[in-house]
Amino acid sequence: MSVKETAAGIAAAVAAGRLTASASVEAALARIAAIDPGVNAFTDVTAERARARAAEIDAGLAAGKAPGPLTGVPFAVKNLFDVAGLATRAGSKINRERAPSPRDGALVRRLEEAGAVLVGALNMGEYAYDFTGENAHDGPSRNPHDRERMTGGSSGGSGAAVAAGLVPLTLGSDTNGSIRVPSAFCGTFGLKPTFGRLSRAGSFPFVASFDHLGPLARSVADLGLAYDAMQGEDPDDPWQAPRPVEPVTDALAQGATGLRIAVAGGYFARGGEPDCFAAVARAAEALGASRRIEIPEAARARAAAFIITAAEAAGLHLDRLRERPGDYDPAVRDRLIAGTTIPAAWVHRTQRFRSWYRARVLALFDEVDVILAPCTPCRALRIGQATMELDGVTVPARPNIGVFTQPISFIGLPVVAVPVRVGDGLPLAVQVIAAPWREDLALRVAGALEAAGVGAAPVAE
Amino acid sequence: MSVKETAAGIAAAVAAGRLTASASVEAALARIAAIDPGVNAFTDVTAERARARAAEIDAGLAAGKAPGPLTGVPFAVKNLFDVAGLATRAGSKINRERAPSPRDGALVRRLEEAGAVLVGALNMGEYAYDFTGENAHDGPSRNPHDRERMTGGSSGGSGAAVAAGLVPLTLGSDTNGSIRVPSAFCGTFGLKPTFGRLSRAGSFPFVASFDHLGPLARSVADLGLAYDAMQGEDPDDPWQAPRPVEPVTDALAQGATGLRIAVAGGYFARGGEPDCFAAVARAAEALGASRRIEIPEAARARAAAFIITAAEAAGLHLDRLRERPGDYDPAVRDRLIAGTTIPAAWVHRTQRFRSWYRARVLALFDEVDVILAPCTPCRALRIGQATMELDGVTVPARPNIGVFTQPISFIGLPVVAVPVRVGDGLPLAVQVIAAPWREDLALRVAGALEAAGVGAAPVAE
Repeated sequence: MSVKETAAGIAAAVAAGRLTASASVEAALARIAAIDPGVNAFTDVTAERARARAAEIDAGLAAGKAPGPLTGVPFAVKNLFDVAGLATRAGSKINRERAPSPRDGALVRRLEEAGAVLVGALNMGEYAYDFTGENAHDGPSRNPHDRERMTGGSSGGSGAAVAAGLVPLTLGSDTNGSIRVPSAFCGTFGLKPTFGRLSRAGSFPFVASFDHLGPLARSVADLGLAYDAMQGEDPDDPWQAPRPVEPVTDALAQGATGLRIAVAGGYFARGGEPDCFAAVARAAEALGASRRIEIPEAARARAAAFIITAAEAAGLHLDRLRERPGDYDPAVRDRLIAGTTIPAAWVHRTQRFRSWYRARVLALFDEVDVILAPCTPCRALRIGQATMELDGVTVPARPNIGVFTQPISFIGLPVVAVPVRVGDGLPLAVQVIAAPWREDLALRVAGALEAAGVGAAPVAE
Repeated sequence: MSVKETAAGIAAAVAAGRLTASASVEAALARIAAIDPGVNAFTDVTAERARARAAEIDAGLAAGKAPGPLTGVPFAVKNLFDVAGLATRAGSKINRERAPSPRDGALVRRLEEAGAVLVGALNMGEYAYDFTGENAHDGPSRNPHDRERMTGGSSGGSGAAVAAGLVPLTLGSDTNGSIRVPSAFCGTFGLKPTFGRLSRAGSFPFVASFDHLGPLARSVADLGLAYDAMQGEDPDDPWQAPRPVEPVTDALAQGATGLRIAVAGGYFARGGEPDCFAAVARAAEALGASRRIEIPEAARARAAAFIITAAEAAGLHLDRLRERPGDYDPAVRDRLIAGTTIPAAWVHRTQRFRSWYRARVLALFDEVDVILAPCTPCRALRIGQATMELDGVTVPARPNIGVFTQPISFIGLPVVAVPVRVGDGLPLAVQVIAAPWREDLALRVAGALEAAGVGAAPVAE
């Protein structure tokens, strides 16, 4: 069985005795060894640990232990997740001096409890303050579909590892778009759950108000399996919302039938390359969604997301900025230093706007269940590309990659990024956006697009 | 019956038919007319409304309606509470141009539902950013015990009206000490409940993270009656904590028996006039409390309270500062302008410290039930006094009045200010501090001090 199989396929094969966990892990390790040097998705391969874990699983199965939903599935995590024995580098140089983590982060533990096997840690933009997937210390992660192109970021390795078929499942984090952008550039499915849904314990923060953790995979079913395994209360995360476990795996079979689906107009229908909107139109057509809806003041929401991001990130990094400015990626350092100058009074006003905006956007969900919008305004840019052209205007590339993702994560809505092929070019993705705590609806619509052959995440060859 | 009677005494007399609500209100209005011109506690006297309400109450009682716990009790509120038909000025010039409030603030409504009768609105420091009780637009409220002295602020009129015997009960607000400081300077009892306990709907804010509303009175029983009448969920206040109504009136009879009481040492035992600590010692002796306890990092907590106060207040006032700087009290304006320059990154760090400090202080309540500390570092200063001497050092008067109150409100602990007479001078008060949601314990200890003759709030003659 190929490691290019989905997580569900691998778990089924292991459960049926057609594949051992050890063989599954060895295949992943072999493919990582063969492919990753050209893709640079991994910063750490935890081969020894993975082999031991796989052997333990195989022994358990042989002794009659029941398999879990992800048994034998190799996975890897953005290197801001704690991994026992590794310093949690969060893409930085400075953090490498941290003590090795005494234990895995909460979501790593939960995936392993479901039978998955961690095989490594993944490249990312420094301290997650990034939309490109480039990294000054580890080198850029490279898009498996065109290695001279960006993966998108900051979860660049998480997108690349899935798209290159190194592992069927990765975890990333998304503050302003860091799961959705790599999903779009690399052509993978990605889930940014509702803010507060999954535990963030044992992960290195960026912007506490906006940070979300979530999975990337090559099928909607795999997103659902991983998400279900990761749900549940965690007393170690004071930010987590008190929500019951609400499994989605069974709900996926319902498809999009009966759901009210609209396309975001206005702000979300301009300022990007035509194919980005064509991808949304293709998805809408497949779903029979003709309705358009206006998300009010999205441009202000994006500006507000920038302000809170810069201010909170600067607060987090204040001591490090003072003590070791030379050890940062200069681009990240300068954004953080700029953030230190933002007056608290602005942030206060921004939070007031945020309350207003949240109420307005939530009211839209009285009318519709799911909103479709583009994920990025462009296909994967060239590594190092500094500017791009949007609607005939030359703009800085980095900040504008997140133009369509920021207004959504700003209020913590759940989103599934669905890769939709348009023309022969590089991948693109559509955001499938739902009301808070309705990951199930976004996943059902994503699944319907996949079933219709519109959403697809083939392994790059 | 004198209006110098307590609220409980008035309500009992009205309930027994020995006094009418109308006679109670007329007596208050007469005393306000006679005394207030020299005290300047009131900015608005709502005589017409009060007379109508009293007549309505008397008619109801005559028709057999059961009296409430505060029936016939005249009260007044700091002019940041909405009062139907008045612009909520919050001590400012600018706010007088607001439309008249369509209805009373939540706590005004609750007191009236319990039978109390609003007779007016009270002088306060501009926008509550004040410890003195002075006001550039309305003139200073004057200490009834010495009219050349400050009332303390910002709820200066609330303290003065009670101490002068104009009404037995007032409402104030306390962000950094604005109920406790006037209680100390004017010699009244005051209750700052736990942050989030009482609804703030229908009041003009100052610092949303720290604002508390609460009563001032001349007896602990009156604080309890008012507090019980004001408890309860209010859907109009999104900041209110979801707490059941926890009445304290019956608990007061238990006194301090069995409670573990400690005196705050270190920071709270220096930096004030000796009599401030003598007042605490007198209270401790009466309670048989010999234990001392250390509140860690109180000086940092005060500094942190300043930072958050200045930053949040500046955020609230940003538009007004831009448009009408000349219409502010210059001292308040300059504090607000300074607040606009505070970086959000500092506030972020400050909030992290706050979490640390809260956890540390809450842990103290595993060991003790109540902590005693001085309320102010000095007796009432002269109106206009700019500096004072503390431990031999000349310091600015205004900010240092709150040196002992700020570290407590910073984490929202409930406090009863208990006036304790030391020597022949002006009043002083002791803070009786309890764990969150344990107003009952602070009030029981305050009641024990009152029963012992140590805590007392005589009307100024």
